[in-house]
Order: sequence, then C-alpha cells, then structure tokens
Amino acid sequence: MSLKNILLRTINQKNKYINLAATAVKINQEQYNYREQNRQYRKTVATALFSSVLIGTVLAEKSKNESKGKDKNKDDNICEAGERRPDLPTYRAEEVSKHDSVESFWVIYKNGVYDVTSFLPSHPGGDQIMNAGGLSIEPFWNVYGMHKTKDICALLESYRIGNLHEDDMMDHSGDELWVKEPSRDKRLIVKTSKPFNAEIPAKLQVEHFDTPKYVELDSSQHRVRVTIENGETVTREFSLQQLDMFPRTQVRAALMCAGNRRSEMNEQVKPVKGISWQGGAISNAVWEGVLLVDVLRACGVDNTDVAGKHVIFTGSDIDATGVNFSTSIPLEQALNPSNRILLATHMNGAVLPPDHGHPLRAVVPGAPAVRSVKWLESITISKDESSSHWHQKDYRSFNASKTWETADFATAPPIYSLPVTSAICDPANGDTVVAKNGVVEIRGYAYSGGGAKILRVDISPDCGETWVQAEEMQTDDAPPQQHYSWTLWTARIPVRKEQKEIELWAKATDSNFNTQPEKFDDIWNIRGLLSNAYHRIKVQIKH
Amino acid sequence: MSLKNILLRTINQKNKYINLAATAVKINQEQYNYREQNRQYRKTVATALFSSVLIGTVLAEKSKNESKGKDKNKDDNICEAGERRPDLPTYRAEEVSKHDSVESFWVIYKNGVYDVTSFLPSHPGGDQIMNAGGLSIEPFWNVYGMHKTKDICALLESYRIGNLHEDDMMDHSGDELWVKEPSRDKRLIVKTSKPFNAEIPAKLQVEHFDTPKYVELDSSQHRVRVTIENGETVTREFSLQQLDMFPRTQVRAALMCAGNRRSEMNEQVKPVKGISWQGGAISNAVWEGVLLVDVLRACGVDNTDVAGKHVIFTGSDIDATGVNFSTSIPLEQALNPSNRILLATHMNGAVLPPDHGHPLRAVVPGAPAVRSVKWLESITISKDESSSHWHQKDYRSFNASKTWETADFATAPPIYSLPVTSAICDPANGDTVVAKNGVVEIRGYAYSGGGAKILRVDISPDCGETWVQAEEMQTDDAPPQQHYSWTLWTARIPVRKEQKEIELWAKATDSNFNTQPEKFDDIWNIRGLLSNAYHRIKVQIKH
Repeated sequence: MSLKNILLRTINQKNKYINLAATAVKINQEQYNYREQNRQYRKTVATALFSSVLIGTVLAEKSKNESKGKDKNKDDNICEAGERRPDLPTYRAEEVSKHDSVESFWVIYKNGVYDVTSFLPSHPGGDQIMNAGGLSIEPFWNVYGMHKTKDICALLESYRIGNLHEDDMMDHSGDELWVKEPSRDKRLIVKTSKPFNAEIPAKLQVEHFDTPKYVELDSSQHRVRVTIENGETVTREFSLQQLDMFPRTQVRAALMCAGNRRSEMNEQVKPVKGISWQGGAISNAVWEGVLLVDVLRACGVDNTDVAGKHVIFTGSDIDATGVNFSTSIPLEQALNPSNRILLATHMNGAVLPPDHGHPLRAVVPGAPAVRSVKWLESITISKDESSSHWHQKDYRSFNASKTWETADFATAPPIYSLPVTSAICDPANGDTVVAKNGVVEIRGYAYSGGGAKILRVDISPDCGETWVQAEEMQTDDAPPQQHYSWTLWTARIPVRKEQKEIELWAKATDSNFNTQPEKFDDIWNIRGLLSNAYHRIKVQIKH
Repeated sequence: MSLKNILLRTINQKNKYINLAATAVKINQEQYNYREQNRQYRKTVATALFSSVLIGTVLAEKSKNESKGKDKNKDDNICEAGERRPDLPTYRAEEVSKHDSVESFWVIYKNGVYDVTSFLPSHPGGDQIMNAGGLSIEPFWNVYGMHKTKDICALLESYRIGNLHEDDMMDHSGDELWVKEPSRDKRLIVKTSKPFNAEIPAKLQVEHFDTPKYVELDSSQHRVRVTIENGETVTREFSLQQLDMFPRTQVRAALMCAGNRRSEMNEQVKPVKGISWQGGAISNAVWEGVLLVDVLRACGVDNTDVAGKHVIFTGSDIDATGVNFSTSIPLEQALNPSNRILLATHMNGAVLPPDHGHPLRAVVPGAPAVRSVKWLESITISKDESSSHWHQKDYRSFNASKTWETADFATAPPIYSLPVTSAICDPANGDTVVAKNGVVEIRGYAYSGGGAKILRVDISPDCGETWVQAEEMQTDDAPPQQHYSWTLWTARIPVRKEQKEIELWAKATDSNFNTQPEKFDDIWNIRGLLSNAYHRIKVQIKH
C-alpha cells in the first residue's frame, strides 16, 4: 500500500482531514506526481525528526558478532494491546465515531475500544491525536511506529472500555510503506524500527573521527524552492546543477539530537518523554554543499529588516496527516557567515545516502540536528516560525519545575544551539578494564554547539576529589566561533594496585569557558532535552 | 615624585632593570615627552588590569549615607609589616643586596629584612618579583598597592630575618604618583586604593540598566599606532579625528572581570589568589567608536593567513618596571564582525572619563574586561600573543586539581570569552525582606559572554526542589551571537505565612542553553577565575 493510498483511505474513512489546522498541507496532484518520481527518499516518512541524528554508521568494516550489540538490535518491544476481551462490552464503529471531541474521545486499536479523553492533554505529539477521534489509531501507529512499545501499549490498555464489533474490523496492517528501507548496519542500536531511529554503540563512536557512511546512491534530479514573504511573495527554484553556481564549501560538523543522553536524565532523576537515547545520538562528518547565506543573498535577502524573521526549511517527508516535515531558524542566524549553514549534497566526500537526506539537506552546524532538515524541498523567509508540530510543540526549553500542564510552548525559547557536553565511550559502564603500569586508558567525545570549541576535558576518578586532564584531543582546525566538529579525547587515569572498581566522571570546558552541570536534577525537563550533566560510569579493574 | 623619577631612582639603585626580559620596554625620551603631555591618564599606573572592570559608578544622584557602604569604603586593610624588631639581627643594605638569586632571595620592607627565597614560585605576579632581589620592595608596593593588605603583610612577616641598618633607610613614601586621582563616588566598595580598584554595591547595580558615569573630561590629542608584523613591518598612525573617517557605531556591552564573584569560590571551597570581588565587578554601558575590523581592513589586513595570529593591544599605563600594560586576542576573533569590537571614545553618550580609558580604549564585548585595554596607544598584528606578564601568566584556565606548582601557563588556554553567570543583588545576603501578599520580590543581573543572550533566569526558594522563572527581563535588542548587554531580572517568590527565613539560588540559561554549575568545588582554580556557580543567599522574612 502506498503512502498516498494510506492517506486517501484515511480521508475516506472520515472527512475530517480536510480541515487540518496545519497550514503546510497542500496535497495537490502536482506534488504527488513529483513525489512518485522520487519514491526513494519519500518512503522514509516522518523520520526527519528523530533520524536526523543518525548521520552514519561505522561500517566500512565487517559486522562483528558482538552478542550485546545483537540483543540490542532485536526489536523485542512487542505491543500486546488490542486483544479481544470477552469481559467487556462490544461497540459498533458508528457508535465509536460519535466520540471525537475533547469532551468524549474514543479510539480503536485492533479489537479494542478505548476512552482516552483524560489522556488528551498529555499526548507528546500534541493535537495530532485529534485526527484519530472516533477512529482506529492503527494507520497512525503504522507510520509513527515508536508508539508500539510495551509501555505505551500498557498505557493504552489502561483506557480500555470495550471490543470493536467483528463486522467493523478493518485491515490496517499496511506495512508496505517500509518495504524499501535500505539495508543498515546490524551493530546499530535500534530505538524504533518504523520509522528507523538508531544510535551508534559508544565504543564504535570513538573508532572513527569522521563517522563513515554506508550506502551510496546515484544522484537524482531535485528542485529546491526559495520563497521570500515580504509584502509580495517572491519565489525562485534551483536544481542541484543551478545550486552549483555558488562556491562549494566543506564544513566538518557533528550533528547531535537535542535529546542525546536523555536516558541518563530519565534514570537519574525521573521519567521524561522521548526516545531513550544513550550517548549515541551524535556523530561527526564532513558536509559539502553551498552556503545558505550565498543562496539567500542571490535571492535578494540583505541585512535590512531581518530582526524577528525566520528561515523555514521544509522536507519532502510527510507525516500521517499529510503535513511535510518542517522547522525554522532565525534569519539572523542564517545570515551570519560564521554559522556556516549549508545546503549539502555530499557527506564525507560522497553523495548523501538516502537516510541522510539525499539529494539535498540543510546542515545547521552547532544547532540541534532537528534543524538540519533532510530531503529539503523548500526554504521560506517568513515573519513567522515554522507552524509545524515539531517546531511549535517540541525542542523548546523549560525549567525543572514545568509539567506538561504548566509548560507554555508558545513563550518558551526554541532551541537553536546546543550546550557543552561529553561522554565516556570506551570503556562502557559495567565493563572490566585492564590497568597497564597502574594506568587505565579511557576514550570519549566532547562537543559544544554555537561554534564553541572544546578546550579541555577533565576526568575525576574519585567523585570530584581530583581531576585528570585528558591528554590527547583530536579535533578540527576551525577556530572558536566557527568550530562545529566534535572532539575525541583520550585520558590516562592512575589507579591504585589494590583498586578493584572505579567511578569515572567526565566534564568538558568549551571556548566560552562554559562547563557541564554536575547533576541532572536541576536541568531536568519534561522532554528530556539538553541532558548535558557529567557523564558517570563505574568499571571493574583487572591488574 | 614623578613616575619618571621613581623609575630612574630604581634604576640608579641598581642597574638590573636595563636587562628586563619583557620585550615591550622602550623607555626612550620621545615616549617620555609624549607621556608628559598626557599626564592626566598616565598617572593611573597599572590600573588597566583590575580597574578595567570599573566601568562607572552609580551617581548622577547624590551620595546616600549608607553606613554599610561607608564602612566598606574605608581602607581599613592597614599593613603592619616592617616595624623594627629588637629581637632580630641588623643587616647593612650592601649585605642584603648580595641575596638576589633564586638560591637566596632577600628583600627589604621599611625596617624589615626578609628571606623570601621559598616564596618565589608562589608569587602571583610571577617573575616581576625578581626585579626586587636584594632591594626594598617599597617602590613596587607603592605602585602595586594591592599588596598592602593585612594578609599579605602577615605573610611577609613570616619570612622576617632581621632589621635594616638605620643608616641605609630610604624614604620610599613617594606617594605623589596618586595625588591627581579623580574624585570618585563614596559608595563604591574600594578593594585597593592605589591603584584604585573598586566594585559597585549590588543594590546600586540594579538601579540603572546602563551604569552612569561620573566624571567628564575635555577630549585631548591622541595617536594610536597600528603595526602589522608580516615579513616587513607596516605601521600607520591615527589621530582620533582620522579614526572618525570610519563609520561610528554603538554597542551596549557589559564589561566583567574574569574574577567577578571570586569571593564566593574563595569562601565556599578554599583560598584563591586575587582581589576578593563580590558580584560587583561588572557593569553595563553603551560604548561608541569605530569597529576595529574596519580599521584593520583599512590597514590591509584581509582574511588570508589569519590562523594563529593575534592582535596585541597596548595601553599608555606602565608598571613599576616600565612595561606598558598589554594583552592580546586572536586575529580571527578581531576580524569577526559579529564580535563588534570597538576602538571606543565615548561611553553612555559622553567622552570617556579618565578611569575608563580616556581618550581611547578597546572594547572587546563578551571577553574578560582585561582584554578591553584602556588608554590605547598601539595595536599590533603579530604571530605571537602579547608577551606581557598579565597575558602570559594570568587569565588562563586550569582544572581544580592544578596548583601553582603544577599549573603550566604556557599550554593553558587564555580566556577570551566568559561563561554564563548570574547574581541576586537586592536583597543582599543577610537582609530582612518584607513579604507582600505572600510574595517576596528579588532582583539581580545575568550575563553570558561570546555574544550569548540570557534566555531565562530561574530561582529556587527551596535548595533546588522547585524553580521559579524570573518574570521581568530587561535587556538589549541585539540578537543572540551579537548580544553583549547584561540582563536585569525581577522574580516574585511565593513564601509561606510562617516562614521566617529563605535560602535563594539563582541560575541563568543562555542562548546556547548553557547553564551555571551548581557548586564551586569542581570549577575552583588557583586564580579564582570564571567563578560562575549558582549564587546563593539567605534572607530573613518579615510578613
């Protein structure tokens, strides 16, 4: 079943989609035709958000049979919701369909009928849930596969009120959407399989300074539209060939999810919402393309009247409601040449692979990876930020006391730059390490957004009593304020002869002399973003 | 006694000054003549380092008779070293003068003779102490008046070995150096009187967004030399009138000492070396002048071959050894237009006052105030950083485990940008505040260097259990990456009816989403720099 069919079927199921609030929905035939020509990258529906952090993997080499890695790869998070329950009443689909308002909101999943009215304000995906009122949520969950975890299914079952009449059952298994996925490295730690979200095992991260890619595709034809909303709207369209009239440039930049290291915040303070990334939602690459600022200048954008304006990036990938993925950055940020923002066609010297936005993506160095929109098809200068859910209702900053009920997304600052962070990659927590001549060697990465360069990484082997400065620092030549690479570091920690265990803390300092907070308690936030406290692990020592 | 006479006398006393290592010493007659013409600002010898943080004071208004403020103003730190001690042997000056090497290093202070050999490696002023070997330190201490504190005099007395023979006593009281000091506001908290180093009482800080100045002078004639060392050396000289051929511009920037809030690190962890600033070594002003980048471009500096080069600023003020004050910043930082680095002639709409560098100073927004060199007379593009003591042996970053013995200044990164910080100014620690309708109002400042803008200030009224976001934020319009103003904030903290005391913590978040460390323990460093952990105060509540 094609994406188009899924959408049309959903529309037939009930006509409410016509009135979708999102302004970006323009499902006209021309776009469909264009999309049909470019199926290769469109099928990755709704992955831009999360998989934008997946820059590449680590496998020019052969896959090793690491049993730990293997277990993590298994998608063992089976959803058990929607079984028929003889103890509950049966409802017809017509009855269910009447409950589609905030006063009474029912949904269907397989055989189950659920009254989720009280859950509505807590839905992490916000108002998108309103599209499923009185309907089956299966088409949505087939697109947003991250719902299908044990925890979320158990939560759904807690709202169970009955069974759907057998005559009204429909087949929503429509899994064809994902059959053309590229083959991916088996060592990746899969967080959600559909859409594909995965992180890189820590020890593989420090194997390569520039994370290798793994798939190459032929380049294909593509257009990107630049629209300037300024009284009258001006639009220009560029093929990739036309973009090449601008000087091509390279930027070595780490892309990191704003939710990287979320699992530590989750475990060390209290639960947050979001994919439970370890430290693997970051990698480093050399991106090549043309500078966004050059393209905008050529389209007539100058330095007058820039305050409060925004650059909206829109990708070709669309979500279950037909809305293209989009987000924005301030125009002032886009026009600052130090920010080195690219329209990129190449990664590490080769054409972008499909998972990384082939044939064209934005790369916004120093910003959360979500701003580096893949499969880029339009750039709009506007007085408004992107209206998309992912821009308006996510990737904003709150203090530790804000709840889903008290957090006001409209006034909270969007995250356009990332703070200083670090992680110990090798050894991993719980490992046994061998001390050589009374010294244990450890390796990891450090990174800071906004162009800041890592100047120092300090390791404490005794819970803050003393600090050992990392000796080797591998990084890019770019100066502070234009430095977007991560830094790989190696530290040598003296240990005592009788010492059997050691707790290690990592703490980085960047070129603005900002450092990491000690603990996650005071930076905790409902979405688990900006989780940059010290990284702490315990390892056993073998002498 | 004039500065020239002091220097000549010191030189006569012993010829060692001829061989001073510092390369910047060129005491020729021409310079002296020039200096004599400009006595007004030269007399402020050696103040650039510390008093560069004193931007202005707070007194368009009349001085209030605050008894607390008055006590703080008193220079009650009387030095009691050098009294005659009948229990100790007497030495002739000739005998003392033989002890002038690292093997045996004696000095004289008033009647006292001291063997300070073992102290040499710990001298915060570094090798400058070597100039006093076998001599009286009084001429130096008369210039570097910050030595004359109870603590340092007690330390000196601990090295006492004898008395100086009465026939060899000299009068070093030479205080004329300071007689032409401008009159200054009585409410300033004086840290050292000669040279004048003072901070602003916290409550007065939040009275004005742009800190008012207090003295106006007529403009005087001045030249600044721009020297480009690049194979052959090129020099150009600009009068203030000639500088006006460049576009004039304004930048609102806070200048903060890298040692601001040092007293908290000192008190909450362990002693550090340096003036014990509270939170008052910061203020905010609108600076006006021409952009350094425009002047450098006009002198032929382009973007080629900039990596690893430096811009050395040299002021007219000279230290006890005849070396002009100087420091440098990376050329890449100087050429980045976002950094808005000024050659400034005006402050808050009027000509610079003498204490603020009249008639010309550098203003390096977002950097430690020490880089904003006052009384600017030369700008040099060089492959080397400034060779001055203050650049090479100070304002660098070390981890908490480095001691004066293990710290390697040559490899430690110089501080060219400041991290995020905040302070509660009103109420002050220990005050009694009145709760109105169950709410206590508190005010303070927050600031971050490198162009970062403060996005949020959070206050915890219960040691981190909950956080209240400050509601009012007064700041400058400039966007992130070009934002150099401080932010004044007001927060309203709910208190319980029976509550008699409250501990308040302040924590700021900047536009790179960096936050402050919780405690000073892990950021402690030998010089007490970058002291930006949470600000914590306790106040009594009256209902």
